[in-house]
Amino acid sequence: MNVLAICAHPDDAEILCGGTLAKYAARGDKVTIAISTNGEVGSPTLSKPEIAETRRQEAKAAADLIGADLIWLGYPDEFLFDTEKTRLDFIEAMRASGAEVVLTHWPDDLYNPDHTLTGRIANDVAIMTTVPNIVTASPVLKKIPIVYFVDSMAGIGFQPDEYVDITDYIDTKKRMLAAHESQVGDWLQDQYGSNAMEMVEVTSRYRGIQCGVRYAEGFIRAKAYPRNIVGTLLP
Amino acid sequence: MNVLAICAHPDDAEILCGGTLAKYAARGDKVTIAISTNGEVGSPTLSKPEIAETRRQEAKAAADLIGADLIWLGYPDEFLFDTEKTRLDFIEAMRASGAEVVLTHWPDDLYNPDHTLTGRIANDVAIMTTVPNIVTASPVLKKIPIVYFVDSMAGIGFQPDEYVDITDYIDTKKRMLAAHESQVGDWLQDQYGSNAMEMVEVTSRYRGIQCGVRYAEGFIRAKAYPRNIVGTLLP
Amino acid sequence: MNVLAICAHPDDAEILCGGTLAKYAARGDKVTIAISTNGEVGSPTLSKPEIAETRRQEAKAAADLIGADLIWLGYPDEFLFDTEKTRLDFIEAMRASGAEVVLTHWPDDLYNPDHTLTGRIANDVAIMTTVPNIVTASPVLKKIPIVYFVDSMAGIGFQPDEYVDITDYIDTKKRMLAAHESQVGDWLQDQYGSNAMEMVEVTSRYRGIQCGVRYAEGFIRAKAYPRNIVGTLLP
Amino acid sequence: MNVLAICAHPDDAEILCGGTLAKYAARGDKVTIAISTNGEVGSPTLSKPEIAETRRQEAKAAADLIGADLIWLGYPDEFLFDTEKTRLDFIEAMRASGAEVVLTHWPDDLYNPDHTLTGRIANDVAIMTTVPNIVTASPVLKKIPIVYFVDSMAGIGFQPDEYVDITDYIDTKKRMLAAHESQVGDWLQDQYGSNAMEMVEVTSRYRGIQCGVRYAEGFIRAKAYPRNIVGTLLP
Amino acid sequence: MNVLAICAHPDDAEILCGGTLAKYAARGDKVTIAISTNGEVGSPTLSKPEIAETRRQEAKAAADLIGADLIWLGYPDEFLFDTEKTRLDFIEAMRASGAEVVLTHWPDDLYNPDHTLTGRIANDVAIMTTVPNIVTASPVLKKIPIVYFVDSMAGIGFQPDEYVDITDYIDTKKRMLAAHESQVGDWLQDQYGSNAMEMVEVTSRYRGIQCGVRYAEGFIRAKAYPRNIVGTLLP
Amino acid sequence: MNVLAICAHPDDAEILCGGTLAKYAARGDKVTIAISTNGEVGSPTLSKPEIAETRRQEAKAAADLIGADLIWLGYPDEFLFDTEKTRLDFIEAMRASGAEVVLTHWPDDLYNPDHTLTGRIANDVAIMTTVPNIVTASPVLKKIPIVYFVDSMAGIGFQPDEYVDITDYIDTKKRMLAAHESQVGDWLQDQYGSNAMEMVEVTSRYRGIQCGVRYAEGFIRAKAYPRNIVGTLLP
Repeated sequence: MNVLAICAHPDDAEILCGGTLAKYAARGDKVTIAISTNGEVGSPTLSKPEIAETRRQEAKAAADLIGADLIWLGYPDEFLFDTEKTRLDFIEAMRASGAEVVLTHWPDDLYNPDHTLTGRIANDVAIMTTVPNIVTASPVLKKIPIVYFVDSMAGIGFQPDEYVDITDYIDTKKRMLAAHESQVGDWLQDQYGSNAMEMVEVTSRYRGIQCGVRYAEGFIRAKAYPRNIVGTLLP
Repeated sequence: MNVLAICAHPDDAEILCGGTLAKYAARGDKVTIAISTNGEVGSPTLSKPEIAETRRQEAKAAADLIGADLIWLGYPDEFLFDTEKTRLDFIEAMRASGAEVVLTHWPDDLYNPDHTLTGRIANDVAIMTTVPNIVTASPVLKKIPIVYFVDSMAGIGFQPDEYVDITDYIDTKKRMLAAHESQVGDWLQDQYGSNAMEMVEVTSRYRGIQCGVRYAEGFIRAKAYPRNIVGTLLP
Repeated sequence: MNVLAICAHPDDAEILCGGTLAKYAARGDKVTIAISTNGEVGSPTLSKPEIAETRRQEAKAAADLIGADLIWLGYPDEFLFDTEKTRLDFIEAMRASGAEVVLTHWPDDLYNPDHTLTGRIANDVAIMTTVPNIVTASPVLKKIPIVYFVDSMAGIGFQPDEYVDITDYIDTKKRMLAAHESQVGDWLQDQYGSNAMEMVEVTSRYRGIQCGVRYAEGFIRAKAYPRNIVGTLLP
Repeated sequence: MNVLAICAHPDDAEILCGGTLAKYAARGDKVTIAISTNGEVGSPTLSKPEIAETRRQEAKAAADLIGADLIWLGYPDEFLFDTEKTRLDFIEAMRASGAEVVLTHWPDDLYNPDHTLTGRIANDVAIMTTVPNIVTASPVLKKIPIVYFVDSMAGIGFQPDEYVDITDYIDTKKRMLAAHESQVGDWLQDQYGSNAMEMVEVTSRYRGIQCGVRYAEGFIRAKAYPRNIVGTLLP
Repeated sequence: MNVLAICAHPDDAEILCGGTLAKYAARGDKVTIAISTNGEVGSPTLSKPEIAETRRQEAKAAADLIGADLIWLGYPDEFLFDTEKTRLDFIEAMRASGAEVVLTHWPDDLYNPDHTLTGRIANDVAIMTTVPNIVTASPVLKKIPIVYFVDSMAGIGFQPDEYVDITDYIDTKKRMLAAHESQVGDWLQDQYGSNAMEMVEVTSRYRGIQCGVRYAEGFIRAKAYPRNIVGTLLP
Repeated sequence: MNVLAICAHPDDAEILCGGTLAKYAARGDKVTIAISTNGEVGSPTLSKPEIAETRRQEAKAAADLIGADLIWLGYPDEFLFDTEKTRLDFIEAMRASGAEVVLTHWPDDLYNPDHTLTGRIANDVAIMTTVPNIVTASPVLKKIPIVYFVDSMAGIGFQPDEYVDITDYIDTKKRMLAAHESQVGDWLQDQYGSNAMEMVEVTSRYRGIQCGVRYAEGFIRAKAYPRNIVGTLLP
């Protein structure tokens, strides 16, 4: 199966669904991580181009850990908008990756507009990927991909429908996050008052307690016609 | 796997999850249907004992169609209450059937108190089935059964989390319902302005359209500690 | 049309739907007010029997103002429960009044258990009123009455589906409330920190602003099979 | 009364509120159908201009069946956005049709962004239609139109507040849909796994069962100041 | 201030609001812990009276750690019901403790009926505590206590309105829980697949991450008239 | 503390949180009112520039009454959009005012898109205000401001989490509103069927009744990481 995680910033996929991506990869699915923005505001000291380039390399290193492909959409960090161009780029990302399942941000999270809009656009273009009259570089998909929303930041307001047991992949998840060296140090600790690595440990364990395993990640399936399914495409 | 459907009146299980029960049975699971009340108000002409006895035989005939066991709790129709005795009887029904999964009414449906309370009690006693200090005729269960709520009557207010494809079992579902001869004639047609058999056809097809198959039934998993699971126990 | 308001305490119907009842009555509908408890805790000085008797007379006087019948169920104030007897009494109240529409408390209000249970029981027995095998003093109803939930106390958490314009009946509503002399003085002012008469003025005006008239009352129709209707039975 | 349905694609109004429009028309109301996009992606074989022109003619034919006017806004299919121009075009559509009631998409449906945004813009500009300082070709409306949201696609997540009995108009509804010849054949069957005509039959019957009539359509009134009303403007 | 935590079983208060109780106590508030059931099913080996007595002593030891009083209501574990007697006992517990604020279970948690009903009854009787005509051993309260609902088990479905920073009290919380020696060993580990002590660590840390402190507990204020307040009574 | 109210039109802040702003100011906090649009459609007779200029002066006069600063963003009334420029202007407004707490519109109100988008953008840029790589005229904030959503228009659909007692400031609130002379006369009375001044009286009194004080305003804290806090920043 072809799996596409499309998230807002480098490190979001790792934090919110890194264990699930590792699990997909481990069982032989083809995993692609698409990142909608370039992460260029993610540093208190580096210039926009410098930190963007750094984060691109970090994202590549993280993806490499599970053999995932990386699609770098490169929109300006904090300034993603819903336009014809972004929709076409998201469609092309789904087509290029042959996406059968898409993991993306939950649009109801009030955390950050890049998250909201990435999730919103990813949900909105799912059907368009199969439409011949919408032309992008890659051929149309044969089947409409199914969309799942990943957890909100710190789980606020999010009640999972489904859980994935990531107990065997928590270490990989942490190593993927650790590849984002520029983000796991003092910067976000100062900004947010908590450490990304510890947040991953606590939230993964918390979701695990909720569903009776050691570590888990939670998801809500996008419930919309004709993308509601019997069973699940989660691993 | 051992499956217990515990519903309020004879014919409720057939209407709301009959296809799923048939599917469980067809793949070899052991299915039990427990009915909390005796259905004694279900006739405009027969006395309470007469219609109760009729309906018990109809329920037996319906269960027989899929090789299911029948547990007849026999509480007075429309007057089920949440008492120590009902809780113990529900616990015993789960233990006697060795229930690993329980299908029951959604407590938020405003339709009928026998439905609300059957769903509520079934949810509430799930953990108690494994507790040694609560003694009933059968031995304690080894594992807490997982509870799913079946659709509301006519689907009002109910948004399924999960669907079961019952395309191959819609005929069985209808034959099971037809076994309730006293209920599929003019009586409920007059009472409710719609025919139970047609309601089953329409609602099953409707849930099917929602999830991309021909006929389906919808469910909500009871989300409570420690009965939230990874994956699903639905067929 | 026959209209039944079934509320928890003397004065509840006046506060929460008095204008609507006056409007029904004014257009010629037969209005009945049923009160489930005897209001015996409604005084800081009078004994239980004294204040209960006082309130019964006040309720009668209020009902008389719009020519409504009064049904006094007389359950102990603050100690109503959902039992076979209460269900049968509620059924009989509906039958005796020939209820085609029932106004009752919203079960989701956390204000008071007599409210919660009155609303819950009234909703739950609506279908039973038409069932021959449930026998009470009056004959069965021919048609299942439609249930509307009245506003919560002070409107907390309540979002009306429908509004009734009571501009022409606000004075009647206030006179009905004023008939509850024992409740509109210092007692509830001390208990609750607000005056019932002013609360009626403010909340009726507030609901009016919400729907574009001077004074209004808000309602939520009980959405349950087979009691969901096309159009409305509100005046 | 003047009624405006403003939907995203040719055939959406027919599927989601065609019976209600036919009922309005039959009782003498003036009905207008506005379509925000040109439907140009609705074919697996025709070019964009070809299928757009085909669908415009189909939309005209469908509208003609009930004597409705057609407003063709012509925005690119799948790429409608919320801009000053779209807002002004929606305002003009409401003014030109003299809209007193507007039926439009429910913005919370996750189905398609043209639906979400059409519903969102239609809701958002309702008040602006009466404002003199917003100038479009037609004169300002005298009264703010009232907005109702039509059902979601396949009813997912949608709980109607109000229902319209369309039993006498189900045939008209189907003939209106049949006028969209390019959409009722294999194309959407292949895309979506279900047939539009059967979906209309099943969902209309389902909503009918929910409210006690043969066929119905469900609606949610936009609850916002000062567009919340007493009673209903539905037929 | 006088604070009453009224929870279902020995150890529930410690798990769900132990840090907050310790914080109240540390700042000089008078804390009382009332436990509605006797915990008699909480052992795989001991008889009901044995484990009940053991747990009562454990509850006493836990309360002693913060100088809290203990009220032991002693209802049969798993079989608490909403009766006149339970309501009067809850009222007396509030009066005896002079409760100005009450912490209790969230009634919407589907976890266990003792939890649901304890929270429900505690909410329902809050106003009654001030009513002279409801007589119990202790005198009436002068002011209606304000009710807060504590977190659900494992936080499922619970979105806190308010948080309490318990960073300085996490150790006390754990020591209070550790006093329940019969519950923190293999028994619940086997039953539930997770360890109570670790669950406290993870959930307290998780709620802390959500509100920007190290450890926290979350609450929802019961929103009902006249018990909605300006500001907070949480420490 | 530095407080920023950022609302859509001149007079919105006064109507929805004027009492709270007056209370902040009275206790010595520095209050700034930012208005995103120029209010240029707010007159049935004046030209756009004329009414915009009038309203700017009215807004200044209202702000002066409590010693608040005014930030006039000047976007076209009814045509605010979420763009890079608006986000940067909102960021600069927060930085220029040194905002520690932000009061803004509730994005779920269906009333008006300027409200929705002002609330949405204000919420979305809160974190960005502290990010060095996003440069505006003023220096970055040291701490992420906390966002509260003010009441919806006429309170529709809005359930406050928190209340502010504005009893001592209701007169100031009304004088602030009265400063908007162009809006409190016949114009909105004709448009909306209610008078702004009376709406303020009724809604403030209504929210007061809900929380036990004479006059109050209601708020919902934006619940998002890392902007969820212990305690409150409301006065």
